Amino acid sequence: MKAEEKIKVILYGIGSIGQRTGKIAWGRENIQIVGAIDSDAAKVGQDLAELLGFANQTGIQVSNDPQAVFKDTEASIALHTTTSFVEQVYPQLESMARAGLNVVSSTEELLYPFYRHPEKSEKLDQLAKSKGVTILGTGVNPGFVMDTLALVMSSVCAKVKKIKIKRVVDASTRRLPLQKKVGAGLSADEFRTLVKQGKLGHIGLLESMLLIAYGLKWEIEKIDENIDPMIADADYQTEYLQVKKGQVAGIKHTVGGYVKGEKGLDLDLRMYIGAKEPHDSVYIEGEPNIDMIVKNGVAGDIATASILVNSIPKVLRAEPGLKTMIDIPAIHNYAK
Amino acid sequence: MKAEEKIKVILYGIGSIGQRTGKIAWGRENIQIVGAIDSDAAKVGQDLAELLGFANQTGIQVSNDPQAVFKDTEASIALHTTTSFVEQVYPQLESMARAGLNVVSSTEELLYPFYRHPEKSEKLDQLAKSKGVTILGTGVNPGFVMDTLALVMSSVCAKVKKIKIKRVVDASTRRLPLQKKVGAGLSADEFRTLVKQGKLGHIGLLESMLLIAYGLKWEIEKIDENIDPMIADADYQTEYLQVKKGQVAGIKHTVGGYVKGEKGLDLDLRMYIGAKEPHDSVYIEGEPNIDMIVKNGVAGDIATASILVNSIPKVLRAEPGLKTMIDIPAIHNYAK
Repeated sequence: MKAEEKIKVILYGIGSIGQRTGKIAWGRENIQIVGAIDSDAAKVGQDLAELLGFANQTGIQVSNDPQAVFKDTEASIALHTTTSFVEQVYPQLESMARAGLNVVSSTEELLYPFYRHPEKSEKLDQLAKSKGVTILGTGVNPGFVMDTLALVMSSVCAKVKKIKIKRVVDASTRRLPLQKKVGAGLSADEFRTLVKQGKLGHIGLLESMLLIAYGLKWEIEKIDENIDPMIADADYQTEYLQVKKGQVAGIKHTVGGYVKGEKGLDLDLRMYIGAKEPHDSVYIEGEPNIDMIVKNGVAGDIATASILVNSIPKVLRAEPGLKTMIDIPAIHNYAK
Repeated sequence: MKAEEKIKVILYGIGSIGQRTGKIAWGRENIQIVGAIDSDAAKVGQDLAELLGFANQTGIQVSNDPQAVFKDTEASIALHTTTSFVEQVYPQLESMARAGLNVVSSTEELLYPFYRHPEKSEKLDQLAKSKGVTILGTGVNPGFVMDTLALVMSSVCAKVKKIKIKRVVDASTRRLPLQKKVGAGLSADEFRTLVKQGKLGHIGLLESMLLIAYGLKWEIEKIDENIDPMIADADYQTEYLQVKKGQVAGIKHTVGGYVKGEKGLDLDLRMYIGAKEPHDSVYIEGEPNIDMIVKNGVAGDIATASILVNSIPKVLRAEPGLKTMIDIPAIHNYAK
């Protein structure tokens, strides 16, 4: 195999996911990180080594001036991990595309932005095409276990009648922000109030369902979305917090997509403290039926960081535009 | 969604897999079969309806003259299901590429032809590029459960140390040719003689391993391939044949790929009469570990026929050349 030039990458966002992503990218032979962007004043000016936990300086200082980084580097792609919402990341995505950068983003809504944000998606797609760059939203969930994986499994089906996807995560093994995000330790009333305020729920579950429908070319007539508390059946103590029996242990978030009067797509996500037998499963009722399970489930943050890095060579080979996981060549690990 | 023009398809090969493939393709709204080719004198001249089991004539007659079919139709892609070996299908592939046809083929060796047939692969790749067409080899195995699926699962891994893939098929649920192909009913001696003559073994298992190595960018130092009989632990009677206790019930075919002195890739395929708990599994030792199982396994012929049809729109969007499953956009079912 002939020597390849390293792919020059900018880290845009150096929070928890960004740091994990940066560490994986740094370890890849074919990748060179050339710039780092974060708006957090505590990080700006630091050498990337301090944030990624390396002993030796990298010579790359965190900047809060994206334009300056774009101007001073010759990167081909950005690993973008700032926030979950298209509304907020839109100016960032636009600025990267204008700078001629391909983008892989962990922004949950970007997995399938065409439904919630049709105008912004259209503008971004046009911009990306005019600049010859590809923009992709991905991650483990949304991005893989509850959407792409189900679609990939459907490749061996002549017909698909229904797809039922379940993800059960034991939140006690996850970081504090996730434990808080699922409402652990709240009362059921507090939980429901936060749900009403739009402050609880897994961002991207709707997008997962929409990506599957897009792939299958199913026209969804009705969407059914529910966010309910999982109540603790005993007292639990995690590394970070305590949940008493009867309090909220976490969340059950479901999204159903109806086709021809039937719930053709059924996504069920449970993340709670003390979850038994965590797993990811996909059941396809079709020809043939497919009954798949990933025992213990696919771990969260490392999986998201990994798929972001693993997608780089495929995004670079993809058609320009705002693309989804099924528009680009299949992503996989690679050693280099 | 705007109305799409139908994709015009030629069926090249109308044996068992070709017939299943044709039936699925015929049922798809976005596909129009425009030609049918087979060399079998018993099929030539028949209306396709007779071979696919349709009540109404299709108006498409089976021809044994590929050039005439290419000339008389305006197809964009061929579904090619003739034989397993690149040596034999090479002239067919060449003629399709020259005619400007994209090709999806069930030829097992074509999954990853670059190792056994480097020169022919290079020539075919050049020809396909010069004609602007894509050639893909796929199927359920090789093509999906023991290669592409493992690679897709690795997309959420930061590192992959080893991949262990196992497929257990209960051959008593499969057609007679498969039951014979796995040696059911032979004595162990007869089995071993046929193995030595190269007449037993699963075609494509080596290619599955090589496709994974290609994806992971692993340089395989040593290949370890074994074909052993599975001996019947009791008497079995299938729809087609009888296997007595002590006779060969089927095959155990394994391929190992060594990297840095270790068996990094371990593929274990067992197809035999009376197999307990048939399944497909992928175990990745890495960061994180992935432990996946498809209960009952993915059914054989219908799955191969399905993935051939499902790959059509993705092959049409792929870069020109002789491509593999990980060079083209992810394949999935689609209703239209």
